[in-house]
Amino acid sequence: MSRADWIAVDWGTSHLRVWQLSGDQVFRQAQSDQGMGVLARAGFEPALLALVQDWLPEGQVTPVLACGMVGSRQGWAEAQYRAVPCTPLGDALAPAPARDLRLDVHIVPGLKQPRPADVMRGEETQVAGFLKRHPGWDGVICLPGTHSKWVHVSAGEVVSFQTFLTGEMFALLSEQSVLRHSLGGWDAAGFADGAAQGMERPERLMARLFTIRAESLLDGLDAGVARGRLSGLMIGAELAAAKPYWLGQRVALIGSEAVAQAYATALQALSVPVTLHDVTEMTLAGLCAARALLPKTEQPCVN
Amino acid sequence: MSRADWIAVDWGTSHLRVWQLSGDQVFRQAQSDQGMGVLARAGFEPALLALVQDWLPEGQVTPVLACGMVGSRQGWAEAQYRAVPCTPLGDALAPAPARDLRLDVHIVPGLKQPRPADVMRGEETQVAGFLKRHPGWDGVICLPGTHSKWVHVSAGEVVSFQTFLTGEMFALLSEQSVLRHSLGGWDAAGFADGAAQGMERPERLMARLFTIRAESLLDGLDAGVARGRLSGLMIGAELAAAKPYWLGQRVALIGSEAVAQAYATALQALSVPVTLHDVTEMTLAGLCAARALLPKTEQPCVN
Repeated sequence: MSRADWIAVDWGTSHLRVWQLSGDQVFRQAQSDQGMGVLARAGFEPALLALVQDWLPEGQVTPVLACGMVGSRQGWAEAQYRAVPCTPLGDALAPAPARDLRLDVHIVPGLKQPRPADVMRGEETQVAGFLKRHPGWDGVICLPGTHSKWVHVSAGEVVSFQTFLTGEMFALLSEQSVLRHSLGGWDAAGFADGAAQGMERPERLMARLFTIRAESLLDGLDAGVARGRLSGLMIGAELAAAKPYWLGQRVALIGSEAVAQAYATALQALSVPVTLHDVTEMTLAGLCAARALLPKTEQPCVN
Repeated sequence: MSRADWIAVDWGTSHLRVWQLSGDQVFRQAQSDQGMGVLARAGFEPALLALVQDWLPEGQVTPVLACGMVGSRQGWAEAQYRAVPCTPLGDALAPAPARDLRLDVHIVPGLKQPRPADVMRGEETQVAGFLKRHPGWDGVICLPGTHSKWVHVSAGEVVSFQTFLTGEMFALLSEQSVLRHSLGGWDAAGFADGAAQGMERPERLMARLFTIRAESLLDGLDAGVARGRLSGLMIGAELAAAKPYWLGQRVALIGSEAVAQAYATALQALSVPVTLHDVTEMTLAGLCAARALLPKTEQPCVN
């Protein structure tokens, strides 16, 4: 059995996940809540070491490859955006400085689009992972989440993309607005109704939201129906605005199970063919693909 | 000069305002942050007494008339909604129990609309105040705020109304979402642009929001322009959905200065004739109008 020879890192705003690998084979994994959002610049290396300390042989340099918000201006080191249209990974990584000589850290750059202005960090790696698993695939990739992304992929390149605040807005509305008193659980029919309404009349989204509260007060609207409808209205409105992306296309959904399934349901109701793909698996596959871009080293002794 | 003989109360989710009056003449006023949102049922009377203790002559009953969320199920006493179409005040008030025998408290009921489901508490009093000042007025009243309301008034009755979450959603997005990093100050041209876009393409609201963040990152978008644009996009989308209310109508805006002025600007850009009215003044005028509904008492000695 071969020795572990590198570490893959998925470092977002609110999470940190690490894998110890040999080639594409995972040996161990670990995670913490030390996301970019809670770290100052000097905090990144200690947060990483807290998880991988025991994976670093003495007297040897271990390559570390990270993707996500870790490469933002507020991250460990800024990895300049690459402009679309381009391949998801390009041909260079951004180095990040480390005091511990056993670490050789690089970050995958995010992508930017000048008009309409848009950015991504982390999703480019998921797209690369998807393309590694599905060589030659053309179509649209949708990555639902806090900030959902629609990505048009053709001939191995990201042609264009668009970000929606849907997930973050749903969280704010359902947890902090007046609607929170009326929501709880999940009703699939409520979601389907909401998605159809949101899709057909997206311009009425703002008008439909308070109706949920009023029906709860006046008609005793079920909390699960209410929560399903709110989610449906917002995802439906997103689908209406993202129509140029999915119309006449096949859509690959990369996301965590519940939210990706909700998008799949809404898209299937519009007769759009969809496939579902695990977000962690795609991230790891993308980091494995990006590993080819690491500078070649002889893993020298350092003292 | 006549003696003060009643107390008017405006009691919302986050504020409590009281006035001591003789007829329509204000003697004194006071306020606190003891809104419904921070009070349990037993807390209402102490919160009121904390402000009006010194206004209550011993051995005498002082009528107190309140409007707003104080009449909700979570308030001091539930004042059942009245169904539109109806006059804003109706002919009855809801009594609220008080331990202090100097208090005789009544609450103005809110209004409800069965389809589309909607409710209001407090705004009916502002509408009544407006109609007291403008007898015979027909048209549309818009009450911007956390939950803005559009109210169609004809022949002294509220015919229909609709509530929008615009103000609450703007607060959540501008203070707690990822957009908060890109916002600050206020640019009037940014607002006008956003309002025009929101009005013309309300179905693209969800798509436009993240663009603010991306333009800030990529193009150094000015924070005042960004905040004005966000507000404009949201108010513009509300105006698009509220079009059946304002199209071909004159609109009376009742609100606090800054937010009412923003709605006025957006409506005037659509050639809708608007007038501006102070929200506190309309509330007080409405409570004065509602005073005629108080049960007649002889203000008897109580011990």
